[in-house]
Amino acid sequence: MKRIAVFTSGGDAPGMNACIRAVVRGAMYHKVEVFGIRRGYSGMIEGDIYPMTSRDVSNIIQRGGTILKSARSRRFTTAEGRQQAYDNLKALGIEGLVAIGGNGTFTGAEIFFNEFKIPTVGAPGTIDNDLYGTDYTIGYDTAVNTSLDAIDKIRDTADSHDRVFFIEVMGRDSGYIAIQSGIGGGAEFVVVPEDLSEPVSSVIKTLKQGFVKKKSSSIVVVAEGEKEGRATEIAEKIKKSIDVEVDIRVTTLGHIQRGGVPSAYDRILASRLGLGAIEGLLRGQKNVMTGIVNNRLVYTPFIECITKDKPISDDLLRMVHILS
Amino acid sequence: MKRIAVFTSGGDAPGMNACIRAVVRGAMYHKVEVFGIRRGYSGMIEGDIYPMTSRDVSNIIQRGGTILKSARSRRFTTAEGRQQAYDNLKALGIEGLVAIGGNGTFTGAEIFFNEFKIPTVGAPGTIDNDLYGTDYTIGYDTAVNTSLDAIDKIRDTADSHDRVFFIEVMGRDSGYIAIQSGIGGGAEFVVVPEDLSEPVSSVIKTLKQGFVKKKSSSIVVVAEGEKEGRATEIAEKIKKSIDVEVDIRVTTLGHIQRGGVPSAYDRILASRLGLGAIEGLLRGQKNVMTGIVNNRLVYTPFIECITKDKPISDDLLRMVHILS
Amino acid sequence: MKRIAVFTSGGDAPGMNACIRAVVRGAMYHKVEVFGIRRGYSGMIEGDIYPMTSRDVSNIIQRGGTILKSARSRRFTTAEGRQQAYDNLKALGIEGLVAIGGNGTFTGAEIFFNEFKIPTVGAPGTIDNDLYGTDYTIGYDTAVNTSLDAIDKIRDTADSHDRVFFIEVMGRDSGYIAIQSGIGGGAEFVVVPEDLSEPVSSVIKTLKQGFVKKKSSSIVVVAEGEKEGRATEIAEKIKKSIDVEVDIRVTTLGHIQRGGVPSAYDRILASRLGLGAIEGLLRGQKNVMTGIVNNRLVYTPFIECITKDKPISDDLLRMVHILS
Amino acid sequence: MKRIAVFTSGGDAPGMNACIRAVVRGAMYHKVEVFGIRRGYSGMIEGDIYPMTSRDVSNIIQRGGTILKSARSRRFTTAEGRQQAYDNLKALGIEGLVAIGGNGTFTGAEIFFNEFKIPTVGAPGTIDNDLYGTDYTIGYDTAVNTSLDAIDKIRDTADSHDRVFFIEVMGRDSGYIAIQSGIGGGAEFVVVPEDLSEPVSSVIKTLKQGFVKKKSSSIVVVAEGEKEGRATEIAEKIKKSIDVEVDIRVTTLGHIQRGGVPSAYDRILASRLGLGAIEGLLRGQKNVMTGIVNNRLVYTPFIECITKDKPISDDLLRMVHILS
Repeated sequence: MKRIAVFTSGGDAPGMNACIRAVVRGAMYHKVEVFGIRRGYSGMIEGDIYPMTSRDVSNIIQRGGTILKSARSRRFTTAEGRQQAYDNLKALGIEGLVAIGGNGTFTGAEIFFNEFKIPTVGAPGTIDNDLYGTDYTIGYDTAVNTSLDAIDKIRDTADSHDRVFFIEVMGRDSGYIAIQSGIGGGAEFVVVPEDLSEPVSSVIKTLKQGFVKKKSSSIVVVAEGEKEGRATEIAEKIKKSIDVEVDIRVTTLGHIQRGGVPSAYDRILASRLGLGAIEGLLRGQKNVMTGIVNNRLVYTPFIECITKDKPISDDLLRMVHILS
Repeated sequence: MKRIAVFTSGGDAPGMNACIRAVVRGAMYHKVEVFGIRRGYSGMIEGDIYPMTSRDVSNIIQRGGTILKSARSRRFTTAEGRQQAYDNLKALGIEGLVAIGGNGTFTGAEIFFNEFKIPTVGAPGTIDNDLYGTDYTIGYDTAVNTSLDAIDKIRDTADSHDRVFFIEVMGRDSGYIAIQSGIGGGAEFVVVPEDLSEPVSSVIKTLKQGFVKKKSSSIVVVAEGEKEGRATEIAEKIKKSIDVEVDIRVTTLGHIQRGGVPSAYDRILASRLGLGAIEGLLRGQKNVMTGIVNNRLVYTPFIECITKDKPISDDLLRMVHILS
Repeated sequence: MKRIAVFTSGGDAPGMNACIRAVVRGAMYHKVEVFGIRRGYSGMIEGDIYPMTSRDVSNIIQRGGTILKSARSRRFTTAEGRQQAYDNLKALGIEGLVAIGGNGTFTGAEIFFNEFKIPTVGAPGTIDNDLYGTDYTIGYDTAVNTSLDAIDKIRDTADSHDRVFFIEVMGRDSGYIAIQSGIGGGAEFVVVPEDLSEPVSSVIKTLKQGFVKKKSSSIVVVAEGEKEGRATEIAEKIKKSIDVEVDIRVTTLGHIQRGGVPSAYDRILASRLGLGAIEGLLRGQKNVMTGIVNNRLVYTPFIECITKDKPISDDLLRMVHILS
Repeated sequence: MKRIAVFTSGGDAPGMNACIRAVVRGAMYHKVEVFGIRRGYSGMIEGDIYPMTSRDVSNIIQRGGTILKSARSRRFTTAEGRQQAYDNLKALGIEGLVAIGGNGTFTGAEIFFNEFKIPTVGAPGTIDNDLYGTDYTIGYDTAVNTSLDAIDKIRDTADSHDRVFFIEVMGRDSGYIAIQSGIGGGAEFVVVPEDLSEPVSSVIKTLKQGFVKKKSSSIVVVAEGEKEGRATEIAEKIKKSIDVEVDIRVTTLGHIQRGGVPSAYDRILASRLGLGAIEGLLRGQKNVMTGIVNNRLVYTPFIECITKDKPISDDLLRMVHILS
């Protein structure tokens, strides 16, 4: 393999730039030419592809977002779009790809390989930490720290006014951000999508215990779940059904969780995974995602990453209960 | 004056603890006894009042919120409530008050003095910076930095996806936080309550200019105004009336703006104003708010602080326009 | 076991408070009385021991340092001192101990058990991450993030002036902080105590390669090693032996690395380890340190933790080389 | 005036990029062409000058350092060097300059004007806040916040171990950073260059008062003064002359104070001053520095800025004393 390309796709995550840097520098170290594709599959179809060198990735390790940009591409879901993408890669002599992204990204790569035999190695870039095949995804640690910083700030206000705060964090199918920022923030209760029981009565029970213990303020962390607004919904129900007088507020952290200077953990993880991806690709890996499992670099077939669940440990849910 | 008390009232603001510390240590320096009243006028009525010493305010200068807590008191709006408050103060021999808060706090203090002749000196503690009689209020600088930090994070995501973001910051009657975090965050447009014109067409015009300049992402900062949700409302209107295809997102910063470790500026401002308040009270000031105007400590009658406006400089609005 | 005590000992580390909180709340959950011992073995000898409840550990999870304080105790190295400590514990009916600290702490606990049969379970609290028996120690992740934040700041200045900076980080026998903050900070070279070769010529070679690549600034991260000042020493040698004209500066990060708000990772790690320590103690563990190895909670005999090495992975050193 | 150039010179300061951005965008708003000169007077002599547009200053408002870089130039102190600089500017048709820097920068500009009649307007960029003609200089607020953040971290350790810490901050001739970070950090004593008395006995007196009050830890902030190492020197003297047993540590903050994401205050100040500089130049101002005095934009002749002192207010020194 003489020439490869790297791109980012799906929601951006802090540390993606550190990963791009590792791919580019790793490629150069192994004397392989490397191209950057802008805006993921969109840029692949539009031919927005340019050669990269070591200098293009200078001084980006600490930057949030992705210098290669990201976008959704409807055209890549069509055979015509993928053909165009392939033609562009072929014209440039690109023989392999490193894809930084999540489920959707790897699904696209899998389909693309089946049609055109261009191998891809993936690196897991998503704040949600919901990918099977790696203990942590790039951006997750930063997102938890950002949420925690927000929870710390809100605790100041909650304590000053003896209020109950419902804080909604990101996490559509996965409560990882919620559970870890809940434990770290000393939350009294955490609502996660994985728990299918109706949380309202449990929250009420916990809050009442707090009143008995004379806790003057409480924090409930809620993963957004299906769609934004879950915290508001739960808070409304509780306001109606609680008999003690409490001052309840809701705040939704929103997009701040995706941005920011990547944490040490994310920079190192992204560097390891980026280097693992390029070196895996050069050694013949294909259609696998690189991950860190039990501190070791592993490659897992895309198909497993996409289809298998990564459940939250019961230990963590137990910790919230004991420590609050 | 041998014995005074200090309390915080209204919304909490970062730096209130630094101000409490300065009042307590200033009182002790001048050999005056000082009491703390918990939860503002509520605690004054309930007699939740305790003696404070230098040690009670150790290691609090860097903490957000207020160790004296804050609350709204309906009873203090009644003659009976105020009588009870006075009886409690009298029983403890408290001869003067330092009140850290905003408009509502000072209105209460003014009424209380007219009835019971207990003098109050106020210190302006509110993140909104909407008080006449001081260039800056305690908590404002921290709130702007918190907003700016959030805007920086969102800019990462906006740039990575070529999106337009509407970011709602606090500011009911005042656009101070919006204008300063907008300039500092390099926003393309800022919507403030002081501007009575319909912002939608101006925002559209600015966004279109950006598209011409090939700016790939934009940030519009919106002060919440009358009630939360203004950013969503404006964004909806724009989505309907804009003809180019743009990916528009809305995020509301919410309560994180009230909390957090106070900035250097707020700690020093709070220390100066707290010391100014206690020393003013001891020198016979009453029913005035201490403030910093043109770098000098001044005292302004409550009545002026409450009734006079503090307009945003036109220079700042002009700067947003030129620099975006 | 009906009554236990917890203490912190050795250098303080961010997250120790989160660990104390988990021990106290875990004990209460299991209906066991818990006492706090101030200033480690010193307080044990002086009888500075007090009962703790859930409220004593409210709102401390986010605080740096240790509310139980820490100190070195010469008297505990004497038989008389340890006898006094034992007498105090016995008088209070304390049957087991949780010790949060490092090598010295656990050595003391081991000796104490041999003499008086009071079992101890340890939790690894040290920023150096140099303890066998756990992948990470409490405080390490925060210290790396603090170092990284400093390196990012210094990189601004290095880039603006085309300078070479030598940055000395903590790490007496261990290069963990150096290597991870070096990778995360994009350092051109990292000097660690584990590498016994003379680093000067390697650093010079790397710097010269940078000049060839027209890198305009460079960062070299140096672990302090035996004693503070190693970075200065190496920088001096290099100034003398390099033939190109370069502006070389040295900065020593010092004690800021020990303090600060603990990171998400450290709060969760500390919570898990604190809970693991108290529950281990109650289940009959003794003279072991609780740790997380490959994401699982494990107990390792003190004697192994003290005597076994925890080498830095060669992969990390290789990464610095490839990515710089 | 149809064409101007902007450069940064002297030590870098956070906010310089925000100032460059304001100059460039201000120039474009007024339909004036703008060039950037790299590495200050060095680049002016070497002809390292390039045209800038609005896009060159996109997304830089939040970055530390200076994208135009900075350097010292010995050649500019010679008539030959300045002639070369003039020839380069003339060849490009540059009619006026905006210089962002400090004393040395403005001295150079003054001499240059006397010889070649190219007018310069300056903007004060230095973390030391030691320039007459403005209440605050660009970078000062960020530097104080950085120092404060370090002091907060060190306080964690000082409290945990009952230690006395001497913290050395920047400030050669000026104690501004020391005094403000000392007040904000709740320091027990602040040593500034402006105070010519021997500080050792005063520090000892203060420390002893603390021991009487049973303060368990103390922070002394020391401005570096003539050369780095002052804190160590004072600490050594005190160790020798104090009779109580105290654990004294010294830490020097060093270059981290120059870098980092600029604070809200610095971004807005830099924007105002940059815009003020370019608009002043276009309106015919020359050899003046733009500043903010009592919240108003003013222009002060370089000669006054260079020669006049800006003393620290006695009020601030008094505050340290009362509040500690």
